Formats: sequence, structure tokens, C-alpha cells
Amino acid sequence: MELNGVAIDNTFAEGFPIWTSRILITAATERLAKVAATEATGFACSVIMCPAEAGIEKYVAPTETPDGRPGYIVEICHPKKSGLEHQLLERLGQCVLTAPTTAVYDAMGEDAEEQLKVGFKLKFFGDGYETKEKTEEGKVIYSVPIMGGDFKIESKLGIKKGVAGGNFFIMADSNMSALNAAEVAVDAIYNVEKTITPFPGGIVASGSKVGYTNPKYSFMAATTNEKMCPTLKDSVESSIPAEINGVYEIVIDGVDEEAVKAAMKAGIAAATKIPGVKQITAGNYGGKLGKYQIQLQELF
Amino acid sequence: MELNGVAIDNTFAEGFPIWTSRILITAATERLAKVAATEATGFACSVIMCPAEAGIEKYVAPTETPDGRPGYIVEICHPKKSGLEHQLLERLGQCVLTAPTTAVYDAMGEDAEEQLKVGFKLKFFGDGYETKEKTEEGKVIYSVPIMGGDFKIESKLGIKKGVAGGNFFIMADSNMSALNAAEVAVDAIYNVEKTITPFPGGIVASGSKVGYTNPKYSFMAATTNEKMCPTLKDSVESSIPAEINGVYEIVIDGVDEEAVKAAMKAGIAAATKIPGVKQITAGNYGGKLGKYQIQLQELF
Amino acid sequence: MELNGVAIDNTFAEGFPIWTSRILITAATERLAKVAATEATGFACSVIMCPAEAGIEKYVAPTETPDGRPGYIVEICHPKKSGLEHQLLERLGQCVLTAPTTAVYDAMGEDAEEQLKVGFKLKFFGDGYETKEKTEEGKVIYSVPIMGGDFKIESKLGIKKGVAGGNFFIMADSNMSALNAAEVAVDAIYNVEKTITPFPGGIVASGSKVGYTNPKYSFMAATTNEKMCPTLKDSVESSIPAEINGVYEIVIDGVDEEAVKAAMKAGIAAATKIPGVKQITAGNYGGKLGKYQIQLQELF
Amino acid sequence: MELNGVAIDNTFAEGFPIWTSRILITAATERLAKVAATEATGFACSVIMCPAEAGIEKYVAPTETPDGRPGYIVEICHPKKSGLEHQLLERLGQCVLTAPTTAVYDAMGEDAEEQLKVGFKLKFFGDGYETKEKTEEGKVIYSVPIMGGDFKIESKLGIKKGVAGGNFFIMADSNMSALNAAEVAVDAIYNVEKTITPFPGGIVASGSKVGYTNPKYSFMAATTNEKMCPTLKDSVESSIPAEINGVYEIVIDGVDEEAVKAAMKAGIAAATKIPGVKQITAGNYGGKLGKYQIQLQELF
Repeated sequence: MELNGVAIDNTFAEGFPIWTSRILITAATERLAKVAATEATGFACSVIMCPAEAGIEKYVAPTETPDGRPGYIVEICHPKKSGLEHQLLERLGQCVLTAPTTAVYDAMGEDAEEQLKVGFKLKFFGDGYETKEKTEEGKVIYSVPIMGGDFKIESKLGIKKGVAGGNFFIMADSNMSALNAAEVAVDAIYNVEKTITPFPGGIVASGSKVGYTNPKYSFMAATTNEKMCPTLKDSVESSIPAEINGVYEIVIDGVDEEAVKAAMKAGIAAATKIPGVKQITAGNYGGKLGKYQIQLQELF
Repeated sequence: MELNGVAIDNTFAEGFPIWTSRILITAATERLAKVAATEATGFACSVIMCPAEAGIEKYVAPTETPDGRPGYIVEICHPKKSGLEHQLLERLGQCVLTAPTTAVYDAMGEDAEEQLKVGFKLKFFGDGYETKEKTEEGKVIYSVPIMGGDFKIESKLGIKKGVAGGNFFIMADSNMSALNAAEVAVDAIYNVEKTITPFPGGIVASGSKVGYTNPKYSFMAATTNEKMCPTLKDSVESSIPAEINGVYEIVIDGVDEEAVKAAMKAGIAAATKIPGVKQITAGNYGGKLGKYQIQLQELF
Repeated sequence: MELNGVAIDNTFAEGFPIWTSRILITAATERLAKVAATEATGFACSVIMCPAEAGIEKYVAPTETPDGRPGYIVEICHPKKSGLEHQLLERLGQCVLTAPTTAVYDAMGEDAEEQLKVGFKLKFFGDGYETKEKTEEGKVIYSVPIMGGDFKIESKLGIKKGVAGGNFFIMADSNMSALNAAEVAVDAIYNVEKTITPFPGGIVASGSKVGYTNPKYSFMAATTNEKMCPTLKDSVESSIPAEINGVYEIVIDGVDEEAVKAAMKAGIAAATKIPGVKQITAGNYGGKLGKYQIQLQELF
Repeated sequence: MELNGVAIDNTFAEGFPIWTSRILITAATERLAKVAATEATGFACSVIMCPAEAGIEKYVAPTETPDGRPGYIVEICHPKKSGLEHQLLERLGQCVLTAPTTAVYDAMGEDAEEQLKVGFKLKFFGDGYETKEKTEEGKVIYSVPIMGGDFKIESKLGIKKGVAGGNFFIMADSNMSALNAAEVAVDAIYNVEKTITPFPGGIVASGSKVGYTNPKYSFMAATTNEKMCPTLKDSVESSIPAEINGVYEIVIDGVDEEAVKAAMKAGIAAATKIPGVKQITAGNYGGKLGKYQIQLQELF
């Protein structure tokens, strides 16, 4: 199958369930909201070695937020529910409460399967000086006095089992064609609700395989996927066609499978517009490990 | 003492030793280098609840880097040496190796007291396909093949006992005057070598006190410093003068005490240029806890 | 009348007709589109001394553009139709055709009152190597070969009599409160369709009066409005209350009066959320000069 | 000759004299200074159809500016001295005086060949409320009261005959390789003092030839240089080798020839680091038109 002249492989992305939160961070200005959202979602590419997977989902205009101020929705994800609560307390407590003029609201809404008492716990920082208000919709908001004014946080934050590991690979004639296509794919996904691309700038430059082939490195749980490395194309049994010199992957987490599918579709559509892109493929474990199988060709 | 018409309190900032690394991350473009540096230094405001303290120190022009590409110097800090090594392996392995076109070089240079074999360990990801080169200066650089080309990393990264907790507080007639002064102070400090401001956007909106005053919250190790909260000014025994309505703190970590002093000086000088700023003070524990005492008035 | 505790004056903004174009600039990446849009709308604050009034209206996601690439809608305005055509030829020909990977589409659509043959004229740059295609909707698009690929531009661009000079003034306790409120107002207006804020960063720091009071400066057509200058508050017959120390104006141009009203409403609502803002007013000439009178209090 | 494996053509860039100003714009924050500098240098790619050539030269830290605030140095250029004065009055009067918290200082310093009384003339906007101070170095600074405080501007701004039209072309295996190389070249040049890259994002996507070849378009003074268009490679007598699919030009203006040479050197060195770049060449008119001939190979 071809899209915009680019081959779309007959394969699928394999995804996994992950506990997911969806949180709105507002501030006095768009920049201040972004600073807090960026800090709170940093060091969060992959739970293999990072303490969480997280990213900024989208900007929310002041006309659309509960407090009439600009904001960003972030998603923070963890395989375990307790791990997610721990991450929320640390990331919201250290990277958002400390940031100028911020407030934190639940953005999972009716999608939530459970509620975590994150705001309830963080309000103890107020040492009794905090106050509590109930909104017309029955939500509880705490106001914690700090130097920069009052930090507001919703008492409970909704979570649900979302989907991690949505992905596709962009293969192009040159490294820079693949890289620009990856950049524009991330731009396109930024507009898809309920999804994030947790890696740096949304792009993955290093593909892994499970385990190792070099017997001296038997202590490694995962190593580079040499078959996908352009610079090894001529020295290993490579999966990369002769004309390909650049490969990047986009990894997507989302609130549900539909959202991840929509993001993959938008990202692939955008990437195939870039001159030099030749082929789109996806990563999977033969369907053995993950609960979700998203067929590339069925997206279109 | 006054500076630009602003009162500088006769007090001192109290700092602590912290193990500090100083690392150059380069990439094909300035933006790509910044993306990797930002992800690698996220979720790293204060070691009280974050796994590290980290930040971007400065931009380095292509003419000044070992590989002729643009880059950013970051500092990553941890109270324990083993903790710092762990953080470096995770943050460089997950947030920089995975980012497009990056390379990692030691930037501690002759300031280093010890060396950590971070590159040596991360190169195992290459599964034997990695290569090794020695520079003219005798440095060992590994090239690890990945999808996006070759990730390069210096074998050893220098560390030393740096200084955490440099700080000053900006007090102004309005919240926004204090906030803009804090922003401009961070801008100014960005130009001071060997220092970072680890909090979101470099600014701290929430001051803490040790322990609690509310007996119901006796499980809390630290709570809001109500004496420094403008919104509690009239209801508690406040440290805030009547004319002050906004307070923000700048926290500085650095490679050595001289660097932290220079950053405090530059930040205070810039903050006092903002209309509405009335007073600069600093935070300390009476000199009981920290090794370093930096007197505000001696900076000028 | 009060909004969020801020006084809204019983007055009106006085607006004028202006010939307005609304143009979509797309590119391979969001950044490239923004670079071209920024250059094309620079040096365009006020037709009093700039050759046009122009600004970026909004970002358009790749899923919403004719070519599936990210883009920005800009508006370029001029009092005369011939002047507008001249500006379009120069700004699109020099600042967009020359920019990497760009394309230009009409975004005025059915709002248009007339069509200018801007693409038709710019395509002569192709020296006969250009090609022409007709879209399914019957639009004519030219492809002009350049070094960076093919520059695409729609043959005709729609224009109409829009509205210039929508405005409101933010008055606050400190300069920085007013400035941050102005910034957040501009953020909010960015989300209102069919409007721009043509001044630098959307904010006007200098208010004018017609003519002069100093007889030595009788050659000046417009001079500073001393009654609105906080630093002259105590030395002239000032319009500024004692508690006000900062004043900024937001000027809005738009495709029609409804759009300008919506932008004024969104901007004022956002500005009044900023601590320290005390009063919102508007600028007019007593209704003598402009066709449009937008009453502040009627917006809410 | 080769640099980093890239062929450097044995040719030269041909440059022209142009009247050049060099101006420091400071503001309360780095962002505010950048907003004003961007607006003041917009619509200024080439004097062929823009009213000036202009760009941001570099950021200046608060520790290095006359007023201790962050700033940007801009260069604004025009072939005629009177045209330059006109542009300075309009661009500084409309795009900087109107921008929040700005001040304007001469940055040409001892390089100046003449002085323009730009500040002296703009101060009439103050209607007699302006004040005048003399610095220790004997410079005259006017303070003009406006709504946002006081706008400060140095009375005289130095100008000199600078150099326009420094240039080089980047040719690469794919459009995106050439484009990323152009981007990184501009990044590198940003660090070279006394030079600007006036086109959008510093990059030129459209090369011109004098006149026309299509007899129907004999009214055109300049048209696309079809020999440098990758998409016409197979249909015209092309100057582009078979392996080249992307071409971008960098144009540089500077205060003197040495600065332009340094910028060309830094830009070429950076561009040749990007994978896929094959060849660097330059544009000239056989030496017939321009005063300056900068040989590419002599730069290294």
C-alpha cells in the first residue's frame, strides 16, 4: 500500500496497557504554564529506565479552562497504579506547585476508571493554612498559600488504563529527510487529543532489541537493534533497503486505543508529505507481548 | 544597603555540598541539542522529592565544541556519588542517547575531582557494534550505532563536590513585579558560567519551612513558610512588609562557590532593575546546616 | 461595571475600515511556516508610519490545510486597495517565496468582497517554467520552481473591508502587572478567529494624541498622550488614578466587527485575571472619526 | 578542495557596499527585547523589493549593556544614506518605541563613519515632556514618557558603509539535508559578530537570475534561476549534479568584509557537518558588479 507515494508496510504496532493520568496545568501566562508542564514531564521517555512516561498533550486556551487562564494538558503514565500516584505526588508537588502562578485540574473527566487523592495529599503542604472550595460541578479545589500567591489543585485526579507503545518508523533517503519527517509527524500528533509522544521532542533515534548478540555483553537486557542502523547497513544482515539512510521512530502513548490510532494516522500522513521519505513500518513482538495490535494499513 | 534603589538585606544564603557533573550535549542543530538537554534535566528541581537537581547551564556555539556542532552544557547534581552515577546513566541513556543526532562530552575538564565511567557503561548498548577512538588530547570517545546514525559519548565524565542552595528572594509591590524580576534574574544568571537554576523556569514560587506548626499535620517533614506568603500577610505573624505583595526565590547550584556567588550577584543586579522591586533577602538556617554562607551585601 | 473585580469603563473603542487580506502560509514544518509568517508580517504595526498593518492570526494543523502541512494564517491590511496589492506582492514575493518549503493559499474564502491576482502575478518569477493546476474546488494553484523545490501559490487572494483600531487599555497597580496582563490578553486573542494584534508582541506601550501641545513642536502630527503616562502622573493634568502605575494598550484588527468584538472580549476577560489589574478603558475620538463604536460594557 | 568530505568550489561570493547601522535594543526581559527586535527587522530580506535589509545580529547579556538589561543588537541596512535614516526613524519609531520597556543605544561605536540624529528626531514625540541626560562617556540619551514608562534612545546612531551580498550555496543529496545544513549554518553565523542573515530564518530558498529567458515575460527584471532548481534538473541545462536534490543559499550582510568572511567561514564549516551535504558553492556576477570578491577556498 502507498500513501503520498510512500510504501506503508503490512505490519502492526504492538501496544501495552499503562496507567494513565490526564492533567490540566494552568498559569497566569501561556509561557508559565508551559514551563511547569515541561519540567513536570521531563525525564520521562520510557519506563524501562525513566521513572515514568509523560508528555505535553496540548495547549488549552483561556476560554476553555476552569479558571479562565491559559494551560497545558499533560499525561503522566506508569505501569503500576501505586507508581503512578507516587509520580504524580512528586512531579506535581516539586515541578508544578513550585512553579509561578500554577493551578492543577483533572482533565481525565468521564474517561476515568479510578480516582487518586493527589490534591488531597499535596494540600498538607499548606500546614492548615490551606482552604477548600466546592465548585458548582461538585469538584473540590484546595488553595495552598505559597510565596507566589495561592497554588490551587483539584482534590482527586482521574486515572485509567491507557495504551503505551503505539509506534511507527520513518525510513528515508537521507538522515535529515527522516528527521524532518519525524519532526513534522510530531507536530501533527500534537493536534490529536488524548495522546502524547514521550521521547525527546517526540522522536526516538535509537531502536532496541531484547537481549544481546555479543556473548560478552550477556548482562544487557536490551541492546541496539543493529538491523535498523543505517551505519551498519553494509556490515550486518540489515532490515534496511539500500536506498534508506535515515530511520526514526515515533512512540505514542494515549488515553485509549482510538486516540493512539488517530495519532498514528495523523503522524504517518504528515511524515509522508516530506520529500525523501520512502517507507513507513512499525515495531512489534509478533503479537506475543502486547494487548493491542494496530495495523498500519487499516489506519487509512 | 541599597542597589538601584532596592534594599539588600544584611543576611546570607546558606549552601551545601552536592556532587556535580557538567556535561556538553551537542546535536546537528541548536534545537535538537536543546530538546535533549531539556528532557535530560527535567523532573530535577530539588533532591527533596526529585531524583536529582539539574538544569541547562548555557548554549555553546559550534565554533567552541569538540565536534563543531551546536550544544548545551547541562549540570546534573546529586548528594551521593553513587546516586549521581545512577542518574547520569539513566538521564543520558534514556533522554540523550535516544534523541536525534546527539553526542555527549565531558565539560567539567580540569575542575573534576573524580571521573565516572558513564560513557564506558552506556556503550554496552552497542552490543559490540560500537567503536572507540582516541582524540589527540587522549580522550576516549565511543560511537554507538543507532537508527539515527552514531551516538557518540566520552568514556569518562568528570564530577566534583559543587555547591547547592545558593539563593535569594525578590520582594516587590505586586506579584507580577516580583515575577518579572525573577524572570530577568534567571536570564542574567544564564550568562554566568558553571551555574544552573534547577527549578521550573529557574524560579521558586513556594517557600518551605522545616516541619509543621499544625499539630494535625505532624507527618509532614516540610510545609509552606506561612511567614513569607503574601496572601497570609494579615492573618499570621508575617515577615512581609506591608508594601510587599509578591515574593519569589531563585535557587542556584554551581560547580563552586565563586560561580554561585557570581550568579547571585548577576541575578540580584538584574532583578533590582525591574520597577516595583523593593527588597532582596536570602534564605538560611542560621548557619547551622550548610557549609557555605554567602553574604548578600558582600557581593556588591 | 466590574469584571473579576476590575472596573470596566463606560466607554467605547473607535474603529475604522481597512482593506484586509487573510492568507494561509504552509511549510514542511511548523517552524518553517512560522519563520515565513513572522518575516512577512514584520514592520507592520500601524499604517501611520509602517507600510502595512499585519500579524499572525493563528496556527493551522496539518489536518486542516489544503496540502496536509502545518501552517499559519496571517492578515495583511492597508487603507487602500492598491496599497494592499502592492504590500501583498512585496511581502509574499520577498518574505514567503524566498522562505524554505512554503506555499500560499487564500484563507478569506467566502468572506471575500474582491479578489486580487497576487499569485497570478508572482508566478511570472517562474520565467515560464511554472506550472498550473486546478483543484477539485476550482481553485488555480501555480507551482514556481525554485532552489528549494516548488513554491506554490493560489492565483487569487480574497480581500474585504475589515476593521482596524479595535482597542482597550489595561491599567494596573504596577508596570509589570499591566504588562503581564497585556501579554495574557494577547495570548487569549490569539485564539479568536479572524483577528490580529499588529503591534510588537501584540502590545502598545506608547499612546498618542493628535497634534502637540508644545508650540515648538508644531511640526508633529502626533505626540505622546501625556495624560496617560504614569511617569508624568504628578506633573500634568493626568487621566491616571493615583493607584495606577502601569498602562498598556492592545490594538486589534479583524476581518469584521464581530471578530474584533470577540477578540476584545477575550482579551479583557483574560487581562482581568491578572493580580494588580484595576481598570480597563478604551480609546476613541468621541465617535467623530471612526465608523465603528465598540462599547466595552456591552461585550459582557 | 574538500572540507569535512564536502567539495568547496573554486569560486567567490560577490558583495556590494551598503549603508549599515548597528543598534542595541534593550528591554526589561530578554523576550521583550526579542519581540521588538524581530518586529523592527521584519519585511527586510532584500532591498530589491523590501524597504531595507535587516536582521538580529546577537543577544547581549544584561552584564554587557549600558542599562544592565538584556538586549539584542540589530543591523538595518539601505543602499542610500537618506533611505537608511528614513528606515531607522520608521522602524525604531513604530516597532521599538511602541514596544514595552525598550531602550535604544548605538552599537556601531568606533566603527562609525557618520552619525544620524535618529534619537534627536524621535524625541519630538515627547512633546516637550522628554528629558535629556549626558552619560559619563559624553553620550546624549533622551527619555520620552510613554504609557509603559520612559522610552530611552541615544541621540545619534552611527552608520558606515558595510558589505551586502556575502553568500554561499549548500547542495545536498536531499532537500531536507540541504535545509538542515542551512539551518545549522545560520545558527553558526548567529555567533559571528557584526553580521546578519537578512532572509527568513536566514535561509534563501529561491535563487534569481537577472532578466528572463521566456520572451513573454520580458517585463521581468529578475526571474528564477532555473539552472539551480532541483525539480528542473532533468528538463533544462542544469548546473546541478545528478546526486543533488536540494539547494539553499545563505545571504550575509555585515559591518565590514572581515565580518562577512568570518560568517561565511563559520556557516560553511557548520553546514559541512550535516550528513548528505555534498558541495558548497557561491554566487557572483563574474566580478562585474560588486566591489567585494570573497573566495570560498581562501576562507579555510
